[in-house]
Amino acid sequence: MSTVKILDDADLSPAAAAVFADIRATRKTEFVGNFWRGLAHDPVLLKRTWESVKEVMTPGALDALTKELIYVAVSMANGCEYCIRSHTAAARAKGMSQAQLLELVAVVGMASETNRLATGLLIPVDEAFLESRPEPAGDRTDRGPA
Amino acid sequence: MSTVKILDDADLSPAAAAVFADIRATRKTEFVGNFWRGLAHDPVLLKRTWESVKEVMTPGALDALTKELIYVAVSMANGCEYCIRSHTAAARAKGMSQAQLLELVAVVGMASETNRLATGLLIPVDEAFLESRPEPAGDRTDRGPA
Amino acid sequence: MSTVKILDDADLSPAAAAVFADIRATRKTEFVGNFWRGLAHDPVLLKRTWESVKEVMTPGALDALTKELIYVAVSMANGCEYCIRSHTAAARAKGMSQAQLLELVAVVGMASETNRLATGLLIPVDEAFLESRPEPAGDRTDRGPA
Amino acid sequence: MSTVKILDDADLSPAAAAVFADIRATRKTEFVGNFWRGLAHDPVLLKRTWESVKEVMTPGALDALTKELIYVAVSMANGCEYCIRSHTAAARAKGMSQAQLLELVAVVGMASETNRLATGLLIPVDEAFLESRPEPAGDRTDRGPA
Amino acid sequence: MSTVKILDDADLSPAAAAVFADIRATRKTEFVGNFWRGLAHDPVLLKRTWESVKEVMTPGALDALTKELIYVAVSMANGCEYCIRSHTAAARAKGMSQAQLLELVAVVGMASETNRLATGLLIPVDEAFLESRPEPAGDRTDRGPA
Amino acid sequence: MSTVKILDDADLSPAAAAVFADIRATRKTEFVGNFWRGLAHDPVLLKRTWESVKEVMTPGALDALTKELIYVAVSMANGCEYCIRSHTAAARAKGMSQAQLLELVAVVGMASETNRLATGLLIPVDEAFLESRPEPAGDRTDRGPA
Repeated sequence: MSTVKILDDADLSPAAAAVFADIRATRKTEFVGNFWRGLAHDPVLLKRTWESVKEVMTPGALDALTKELIYVAVSMANGCEYCIRSHTAAARAKGMSQAQLLELVAVVGMASETNRLATGLLIPVDEAFLESRPEPAGDRTDRGPA
Repeated sequence: MSTVKILDDADLSPAAAAVFADIRATRKTEFVGNFWRGLAHDPVLLKRTWESVKEVMTPGALDALTKELIYVAVSMANGCEYCIRSHTAAARAKGMSQAQLLELVAVVGMASETNRLATGLLIPVDEAFLESRPEPAGDRTDRGPA
Repeated sequence: MSTVKILDDADLSPAAAAVFADIRATRKTEFVGNFWRGLAHDPVLLKRTWESVKEVMTPGALDALTKELIYVAVSMANGCEYCIRSHTAAARAKGMSQAQLLELVAVVGMASETNRLATGLLIPVDEAFLESRPEPAGDRTDRGPA
Repeated sequence: MSTVKILDDADLSPAAAAVFADIRATRKTEFVGNFWRGLAHDPVLLKRTWESVKEVMTPGALDALTKELIYVAVSMANGCEYCIRSHTAAARAKGMSQAQLLELVAVVGMASETNRLATGLLIPVDEAFLESRPEPAGDRTDRGPA
Repeated sequence: MSTVKILDDADLSPAAAAVFADIRATRKTEFVGNFWRGLAHDPVLLKRTWESVKEVMTPGALDALTKELIYVAVSMANGCEYCIRSHTAAARAKGMSQAQLLELVAVVGMASETNRLATGLLIPVDEAFLESRPEPAGDRTDRGPA
Repeated sequence: MSTVKILDDADLSPAAAAVFADIRATRKTEFVGNFWRGLAHDPVLLKRTWESVKEVMTPGALDALTKELIYVAVSMANGCEYCIRSHTAAARAKGMSQAQLLELVAVVGMASETNRLATGLLIPVDEAFLESRPEPAGDRTDRGPA
């Protein structure tokens, strides 16, 4: 049980209902998950969060599946069950195979292990890594396809 | 300064030197970073860590760049500076553009935000997500190309 | 189910019972939550934790509700369900409105996003922030009202 | 050193320059920190992040200082040095005293301790906390002053 | 419910079955937990994880119980319920008393509190700690008994 | 540079000086680290933190070195550089060898990896682990030697 009520469509303010309509139109489904139904108490928070997610997840220099895999990986690292479930489902809908999920979680696990080894021993950064930053590639218009 | 000495090649035990030789042969470079030089005090730890990373990062159902992007993302979420630097450099070497790095960090940030919103309000998982698990696709041999 | 038994009042050692009596007297309620009932196996741990919480949450330079909001925010960031529930309830008892809870979680989410952006790109601290530390204001006796 | 170049004003694209102008106008200062100068490579990310922070930090049901204190607390829990420094400075500019900073960090520490105790022993949530959720207070228009 | 199917023995590929046989032989029990049954979809991941855990947990410079206590402590800090439960059970099987569990969680809690205090105030490392690193004790063969 | 001034002995209030005297007497050294010198602005916070650490780290059911190893492990998992350095030094002073440090960080790394695997796939807890809790062993007086 959440600490705010999960709102039904009938409970929505007009401002929240407008966001739900955009979620449905964008995703081409009637389903709107509990995450959005909890945020809907605060239409400003709901609208900003939805529009931000929509913008961030739009294919750009990275394709839609790659972005979703990264989303799942971060949710695993942060330990958010709701997000692991909803974004694993989203990644599957975008084509993630079971084998890809298992390789994904293997990378998440291995990165977490070496993160702790490097931090745990306070390994100093090599000069080589400090020198490796390229010149800025400029503006977003430089983005090529992934 | 690390809490163990960063070992020069001359300091290595034969067992550690053998792992360094494999790192160099696999990566086709003389450079071996401080991470491995810190672990080299314990050749068993060094060998296992290197062989695990090598296995996990081998292209399979996910390609090499996608795995590296996930590694960077998890290192960002876990807050490991050494790993962010070394794997950002590795991702660049595998073709990550600056625009891709910026989209990557944007996904990491957005996932972290919604992770906290979902956890913070204790949003219950939708039935729809619990039903969405496909039948197992079987063994690793099922892995197609990414 | 916890990994230690949740103790009933009848199970308490005299030392633990004395702490429960102080919890009840301080909070003016018979209710003592499972957190304290789990710690009660170790009266020294129970007593220290209760007295520390009591001291930290006493109004001082920050008022009681502000302290409770910070407690909830940290529990959200750390992902502790028990603590989110118990301290969200405590904050409500101290006057937190639903609108305040939604603004609180919005700040927690936004901070987590920008934390990851700054850490993920390893943004260097501006000189301006390093210079901004005021002279020490001295001892606790300097504390004015919030 | 960051993994993207920190941009000078002269390096900015027109879209990024427009965001910087709004930061300066809103905050009534010429100073724009490295965080924004790193994001400026991606004007879409820069604009969304700035507008989100501006919206979230606007006084509403919670006042400006309380929001800033929560921001600092979350940054401490997430271990982001840049954010701790920049938001501690911001909180001071909004009136946070040294005594308040010390009480803030004391709450962050105590919450982190009890978070671990509750999670570490897997303490089950009391029924009382599950029952304590009030009816939704409705829309954002219900927000009174903090 | 996991996001991959928990496999019964009858579902295992030959490669996964071979790992299960080694788990049973090593631990001298028929019981194989859900963790391994979830990983069994990917026999390469299963084999590497099992062999790594087996190697790491073998008594060496630290005895078996001390390693298990550290495993539990890290699982508490990382907030992994499955791991807290399975490794608390493993620690008990290796002789951990209830009093030891309570002292363990007390250290985890206290360390988490002081971690936040030190990070939250950005306390600089004392010179004395930087100077305290001994010369390397050499190779793994130096390991004496715990 | 910390966000509060690191206090010299000459800056201390009488209440803070009394705590420093107890630190010196208990540890039998004139050295008092920056952590305590930062907290010393708030003698109530300083006193409570010191007395809590002293109580928690006193040998009981777990010996002093085991407690220190757990402290280091948690500090590694939480990513606190100050605490990793100060408690690695403390563990060495209590007899931790370099080989033990390397086995310690190996367990921290492995636990973090399997924590992410179990959380990432949302592995359900086995019934066997839920049944494994023994009856409470009673009060602190039951504590035997480690």
